[in-house]
Amino acid sequence: MDIIVLGHEATKEEIKHITKKLESWGLKANISKGTERTIIGVIGDTSKITEDEEAAIRAIPGVENVVRILKPYKLASREFKRENTEINIQGIVVGGKKIPVMAGPCAVENKTILTNIAEKVKKAGATFLRGGAFKPRTSPYSFQGLGEEGLKYLAEARKKTGLPVITEIMDPRDLDLIVEYSDIIQIGARNMQNFRLLLEVGSSNKPVLLKRGLSSTIKEWLMSAEYIMSRGNQNVMLCERGIRTFETATRNTLDLSAVPVLKQLTHLPVVVDPSHGVGKRELVAPMAKAAVAAGADALIIEVHTNPEEAMSDGEQSLKPEQFEKLMKELRPVAQAVGREI
Amino acid sequence: MDIIVLGHEATKEEIKHITKKLESWGLKANISKGTERTIIGVIGDTSKITEDEEAAIRAIPGVENVVRILKPYKLASREFKRENTEINIQGIVVGGKKIPVMAGPCAVENKTILTNIAEKVKKAGATFLRGGAFKPRTSPYSFQGLGEEGLKYLAEARKKTGLPVITEIMDPRDLDLIVEYSDIIQIGARNMQNFRLLLEVGSSNKPVLLKRGLSSTIKEWLMSAEYIMSRGNQNVMLCERGIRTFETATRNTLDLSAVPVLKQLTHLPVVVDPSHGVGKRELVAPMAKAAVAAGADALIIEVHTNPEEAMSDGEQSLKPEQFEKLMKELRPVAQAVGREI
Amino acid sequence: MDIIVLGHEATKEEIKHITKKLESWGLKANISKGTERTIIGVIGDTSKITEDEEAAIRAIPGVENVVRILKPYKLASREFKRENTEINIQGIVVGGKKIPVMAGPCAVENKTILTNIAEKVKKAGATFLRGGAFKPRTSPYSFQGLGEEGLKYLAEARKKTGLPVITEIMDPRDLDLIVEYSDIIQIGARNMQNFRLLLEVGSSNKPVLLKRGLSSTIKEWLMSAEYIMSRGNQNVMLCERGIRTFETATRNTLDLSAVPVLKQLTHLPVVVDPSHGVGKRELVAPMAKAAVAAGADALIIEVHTNPEEAMSDGEQSLKPEQFEKLMKELRPVAQAVGREI
Amino acid sequence: MDIIVLGHEATKEEIKHITKKLESWGLKANISKGTERTIIGVIGDTSKITEDEEAAIRAIPGVENVVRILKPYKLASREFKRENTEINIQGIVVGGKKIPVMAGPCAVENKTILTNIAEKVKKAGATFLRGGAFKPRTSPYSFQGLGEEGLKYLAEARKKTGLPVITEIMDPRDLDLIVEYSDIIQIGARNMQNFRLLLEVGSSNKPVLLKRGLSSTIKEWLMSAEYIMSRGNQNVMLCERGIRTFETATRNTLDLSAVPVLKQLTHLPVVVDPSHGVGKRELVAPMAKAAVAAGADALIIEVHTNPEEAMSDGEQSLKPEQFEKLMKELRPVAQAVGREI
Repeated sequence: MDIIVLGHEATKEEIKHITKKLESWGLKANISKGTERTIIGVIGDTSKITEDEEAAIRAIPGVENVVRILKPYKLASREFKRENTEINIQGIVVGGKKIPVMAGPCAVENKTILTNIAEKVKKAGATFLRGGAFKPRTSPYSFQGLGEEGLKYLAEARKKTGLPVITEIMDPRDLDLIVEYSDIIQIGARNMQNFRLLLEVGSSNKPVLLKRGLSSTIKEWLMSAEYIMSRGNQNVMLCERGIRTFETATRNTLDLSAVPVLKQLTHLPVVVDPSHGVGKRELVAPMAKAAVAAGADALIIEVHTNPEEAMSDGEQSLKPEQFEKLMKELRPVAQAVGREI
Repeated sequence: MDIIVLGHEATKEEIKHITKKLESWGLKANISKGTERTIIGVIGDTSKITEDEEAAIRAIPGVENVVRILKPYKLASREFKRENTEINIQGIVVGGKKIPVMAGPCAVENKTILTNIAEKVKKAGATFLRGGAFKPRTSPYSFQGLGEEGLKYLAEARKKTGLPVITEIMDPRDLDLIVEYSDIIQIGARNMQNFRLLLEVGSSNKPVLLKRGLSSTIKEWLMSAEYIMSRGNQNVMLCERGIRTFETATRNTLDLSAVPVLKQLTHLPVVVDPSHGVGKRELVAPMAKAAVAAGADALIIEVHTNPEEAMSDGEQSLKPEQFEKLMKELRPVAQAVGREI
Repeated sequence: MDIIVLGHEATKEEIKHITKKLESWGLKANISKGTERTIIGVIGDTSKITEDEEAAIRAIPGVENVVRILKPYKLASREFKRENTEINIQGIVVGGKKIPVMAGPCAVENKTILTNIAEKVKKAGATFLRGGAFKPRTSPYSFQGLGEEGLKYLAEARKKTGLPVITEIMDPRDLDLIVEYSDIIQIGARNMQNFRLLLEVGSSNKPVLLKRGLSSTIKEWLMSAEYIMSRGNQNVMLCERGIRTFETATRNTLDLSAVPVLKQLTHLPVVVDPSHGVGKRELVAPMAKAAVAAGADALIIEVHTNPEEAMSDGEQSLKPEQFEKLMKELRPVAQAVGREI
Repeated sequence: MDIIVLGHEATKEEIKHITKKLESWGLKANISKGTERTIIGVIGDTSKITEDEEAAIRAIPGVENVVRILKPYKLASREFKRENTEINIQGIVVGGKKIPVMAGPCAVENKTILTNIAEKVKKAGATFLRGGAFKPRTSPYSFQGLGEEGLKYLAEARKKTGLPVITEIMDPRDLDLIVEYSDIIQIGARNMQNFRLLLEVGSSNKPVLLKRGLSSTIKEWLMSAEYIMSRGNQNVMLCERGIRTFETATRNTLDLSAVPVLKQLTHLPVVVDPSHGVGKRELVAPMAKAAVAAGADALIIEVHTNPEEAMSDGEQSLKPEQFEKLMKELRPVAQAVGREI
């Protein structure tokens, strides 16, 4: 049931107009007149009312507000599916008791460095290798990634270490390539509402890690998950990576409260990226622990053997020994909240 | 010249390390030691230092801050090109004394409605017809636009009215289609950092209207313009359409101060979209006037003959008679600031 | 009428509990059960339901949402008083056709400078003299204002020029002092929700200029006006001075759309402060013009004869000749929107 | 050392003007001319340059930017005092290994309820009793607190349970009263920049809990702590309670990354208030655990025996049994990060 609020200046004709519109959609209007406002309760399956139909009602003179009661996403909602979704990727489950950790460099730079990092993060306990072959960069003059060559290095590092691989897609035309080489497709924050890319990725059956947009509400984020799921791909992980606020002491503001909020609204697994969330190496460890304590299902962390030579995001990358220390520190925190790492 | 700030705990080795790195890039280091901090002034053409190289320096232990003095965008900067860029589109100039107005529906719905709107906005004084054939929508269940059919209707409305056409691109794969049918390509707010789309559009020579992302800084916005320009397409217009803030009384917060800021930083024309900026019909007129008073080079306004039946954004669309009234009211405002409409 | 939304798991007892609570407040419940939600329409004068009572209902298990239909402010609302409030201060009306301009230095520094500035802004057409004797400063080590001495200088400048005076109050204990020396009391942005100060000022009958808080919604701002008005002082002016957003190119983001929004919601006059809104001298003029075009009832602008020697906010102060030029440029803009300066 | 950046159009006179100004302050200028910019390095104890002097330099034509290297706060800085400040309140230490928990109702409502809650939170392990006698409320029509009566109830509850008491001050005129009855004075978020109140509280020697303003940067927050400390009161605790962002799924966005950031910048203890941070009961427990994992030195949590009857903030109050459960769950998390509860 939805609610339409009309001002006291709303005329009988306007109310009738709305009633007829609702009836044409197979719905009924329950009208309550107050002294200051008239309220129309909409009876029937209002989940069918689209964004556009809602807007059309808002555009009617006299309408002050429309209150939607049902959530605009369905497949992604906890109401549609009560139990947690567990996504099995090469035998590693995201969304279960165990908290997998995805680690690796921001960008794939060359084979030797990547393999070296992969071996080190594996030894420390990471279960996925992250690394970007296509890099979204603010400047056209910055390193844009190695492209297919980078994907090949990832595949080789996977072969050597057994770590499944996660990498970012930036262009719908790259889907086949990325599906071929990777185990999880990452949609970056800047592309969270690149709807064509979402639909394309939704048409594959690869697990998808959907990062939250810099200024996206949780609702919009779930709508973007719905885009992917509406095409048939149900294997979506949501990754909190910091939102944009007025605070400049950190690169972004890591919104950890999104974790328990999502746990209420959706059955999809929730991943946290503390590296991008804070943007500074020294802050990664405390926020990784906080993420686990808040209920994160997985972590994704940047690690580089030589952060000062990293081709991107060196400032926020842990060194392998720092990562190893963090992994050790995370275990008791996970246990304290009934999880494992 | 750029500046690197080191904490007092920075060692001689670290300073030497930085000096050597700078020298390997053909730059020189001017070191000033204070009691609390050491400052390295970087001498030479520091505009060559990329985002990545800057990050590499930030990642060096002891480095507290790196201050960039030069702007990271070049082709888009007022320093690169002093005089205003004027873009001539079918004889109508954007960026000159006269302020063109782009008007039309949010989405192209059918031929009759579109032609009807086109004729009415033309009569009222609009010089471009806007209308979306590909629509980015928050929900996968909302109307996504008519696609190529919509483009054809736009072309027919142009034929009938003589109004050049502006329409949005969402996918790099649609470039040829959109170039064929439209006179200006619009990049929507959600795609402002869809870098592959920017590069694709940059490789054509169609004028581009680049909307500001919901939470994009002016600097990031200019970097996105730089992406397009770096590929050869210099015909870029910047369109302020509201940013996301905590305020919910308006759909977005129209940042009109971006207009004079951009006038200082860049030679590119600045367009304002009050319709999306505020999201409510009654607020469009005052903000359109304010935009002109603030120095906007063009306006883009949503108009619909029947906003309540509009398939999207009806709430913020003006009716033709309201648009006509606004056009009349805009003229003296334009004159008051030495412009014409 | 208000609306209470319950989830489908809401029990009969919970619904009964709510019904009884509403009845104890003299209200009635109109219950509509849907398949997914139950909606309770609250019938009667729901404007009596306080913030606390609303919170109590929200705290009942099963309650998903409470939708308030009536506005929480009364005296300040356009519904309470249809016609615009005009405040007459020493013969100058704020809220009428004519747009008064308040000008002067950020802080009162000494008698000579102040009188000099006062004479110059008067000559250029300003109708009020602004100047701070008590200055809220981020740092305890910054100049905090001359206090009573500054107030005396303001009174002397008023005597010399005839310009009524506006100055800021920071402490309820200073009320008598400020009432004695000034014609308008300013509540600064940082004190917009200093409720004790609001009540104190409300108990006087001096006109009040209430600046919007850095991150205050328009609704909260009107609630703060309501605080003052609830004590009997109806002479409140609302002053937009920029809100805090992620953008750093300007000191704040001047939210000009607040002007037409306020014009709908309230009968109180709306003042715009472009100086604090943008924080940079070169941006003040275009935003002042935009403010007038958007419908502002008055402007408040910083002017200093020697900005580089100003003890605060020199960066955003106009020089007298710049102010004079701006006043000339504002006149045709005011005329273009049916106003005068 | 600070840095002044001048554009290439800066004249010799302007540079000389700056040099002389710096010399008049006992500082020296180190000038480096580049092709595009001139950089003046300021040599000497630049920490003496006030906010106002900085602004004066910014106001000089030709000056593009001023970069401050030294932090504007001193007493609050980690550089001023390396070791953590531990504040001993009636034998309970805030800032040590053990994490004290402050619990109780938002507002003191009556003696029986308060004592009942106090006994219950004590039993569950809380070490301080929180409760507001003076309540800042958005609406003048909401319950404003019991005032002195409320303070008396707090004192009685302390007598019965032995729990020291924390309560909010809203008005400098209430200082004596609050000092008499409470053990910690709370400065609420809305008063973080109520500088007169800060100074007043700074002149007492009661420990102060300073909540972060809704849109205050960490730097501004530390400057407010500096206000208190500059008057002699060094017993300041900083309390993160959520910042205002665009997200509406939570009441505020709890910025937990502020915890490790503060641990770097200051020696003062850091407290987290998950109740106000999220505004919803079900989210309090995960965020409390996350706060401890992130390194918080103390927690402050709302507890009410009958949240639905609470006179404010019932929606975010835990019931005693929920609080007891949370306390049990917090212990292993604290242990996992080397702390105790």
